[in-house]
Amino acid sequence: MTPGFTGSPLDRADALRNDPDALAAARSDWRARLLRLDGIDPVLGDNDRLSWGSLAEAEPDAELLLLGLLDGRPHFAQLRPDMPEGAARSLAIFRMLDVLPAEEASTYAAARSLIDWHLRHRFCARCGSGDTALHRAGWGRKCGSCGAEHFPRVDPVVIMLAEHEGRVLVGRQPRYPPRRYSALAGFVEPGESIEEAVARELWEEAGLRVHGVRYVTSQPWPFPSQLMMACVAEADSDALTLDRTELEDAFWIDRADVDAALAEVPHAAFTPPPPYAIAHTLLRWWLEQG
Amino acid sequence: MTPGFTGSPLDRADALRNDPDALAAARSDWRARLLRLDGIDPVLGDNDRLSWGSLAEAEPDAELLLLGLLDGRPHFAQLRPDMPEGAARSLAIFRMLDVLPAEEASTYAAARSLIDWHLRHRFCARCGSGDTALHRAGWGRKCGSCGAEHFPRVDPVVIMLAEHEGRVLVGRQPRYPPRRYSALAGFVEPGESIEEAVARELWEEAGLRVHGVRYVTSQPWPFPSQLMMACVAEADSDALTLDRTELEDAFWIDRADVDAALAEVPHAAFTPPPPYAIAHTLLRWWLEQG
Repeated sequence: MTPGFTGSPLDRADALRNDPDALAAARSDWRARLLRLDGIDPVLGDNDRLSWGSLAEAEPDAELLLLGLLDGRPHFAQLRPDMPEGAARSLAIFRMLDVLPAEEASTYAAARSLIDWHLRHRFCARCGSGDTALHRAGWGRKCGSCGAEHFPRVDPVVIMLAEHEGRVLVGRQPRYPPRRYSALAGFVEPGESIEEAVARELWEEAGLRVHGVRYVTSQPWPFPSQLMMACVAEADSDALTLDRTELEDAFWIDRADVDAALAEVPHAAFTPPPPYAIAHTLLRWWLEQG
Repeated sequence: MTPGFTGSPLDRADALRNDPDALAAARSDWRARLLRLDGIDPVLGDNDRLSWGSLAEAEPDAELLLLGLLDGRPHFAQLRPDMPEGAARSLAIFRMLDVLPAEEASTYAAARSLIDWHLRHRFCARCGSGDTALHRAGWGRKCGSCGAEHFPRVDPVVIMLAEHEGRVLVGRQPRYPPRRYSALAGFVEPGESIEEAVARELWEEAGLRVHGVRYVTSQPWPFPSQLMMACVAEADSDALTLDRTELEDAFWIDRADVDAALAEVPHAAFTPPPPYAIAHTLLRWWLEQG
């Protein structure tokens, strides 16, 4: 079970981030490499892998973010004032994710989430000042006015299968492609555990009371920067009350349905989420438990 | 196994947050209650539980945050301009946590994290405007200038025991009380999974390579708003290389050591974290696996 966006060989080299001399040396290292991007999307090179250039390719007005070390070499991404916020997702990125190996997508995810966070957090949320600057080699911003340090957000999200008598619940949001169904999901809120968030979301979205929440696995999701935590939970009954503002439809499926959907056979009950989505990993994991 | 800060009976009543009429009705409900606070600390009432007053106790300049429903009644907290940021933690709060039942601490945690987030995010990080206002009954802010919506942060943190031949690793940070040792911990970064964050932190802080990371349980931690995710991992060896900027000391302990520490016997090898900390729950869980 290898979830999407995991397995990057990147050494994040935390010690370098806070060492100005080491960071300066990394930036002047002739072996240093720069992630090639088109806007905030990756540029794919040979064998559908990420493409890297030399630091000489950085734009004059760019700031450099230290992603970490690969094979001992410093690897950077550039932050440019004219970059589009990642909220404007291109269709191209999803086509690329169909071919990009998970460990390459994982390195890209770190870069994309970091860049997108900087683009949306140029001002200090504490005092409003625009005098904020890159901090810790790009893994934060510091306010020159009030001194507040800000760190990139990672938003924890629970994504789960409610299970009842050998069947699990899948649903679809209105924005999904036709026939796509997936596990239900929602953001963890302040003051709750993963297990409580799973129970709350299944109650709010589907009217299900659950017990026995179990964690399965996790992955990052860089649109813009979620931590997806996949769980299963036992539903007390299979009676649904759907929140139609969240879900267009939902139904219970058995293992034969999941098998057919993942095998993409014609006339399967639904189209599953793509392999790089943790809901795909979760459905495959559940199938294998049977 | 009941982790600290979990078990709140609060119904977060998500549907009310986005329904202006229902929210207005909740605010004019004579049964509505207001969390009593001293600064950002709780005021304890009878039986060491949270204390609640009527909405008439709200200060004239306060804004109301809808925590949710308890026994069908709307429960609010107030946000006041003169409140201190939670970063200035009082000693009193930790004495209160020694006596506050977990389910009461859980309700308080939601209120504290939410209030503290508003206090530190009055300005729009996207455009710098101070024209931001409460949104979704207090579960967000909206910028009146650029229209950006901002949501309360929850920062995922991994906290873990590395295990090797029947022993686990505990360490202490310089700021801990005397003799206190705990599980190692660190923030999950953009672009990594829980399992990858566990492996990275144990490598960075203790020089350990690990495999077989397993999730155990989770809880919120409202200082200011972490999601603590407890894990265990198998260490490839027990040779330590400590990062002295993070850890003052660390050592391997066996189940007898954990048993003695949790029983608070004299001359135990170390003083454990308090029961409301997930590291306590994790140590107790590991003891019971033996």
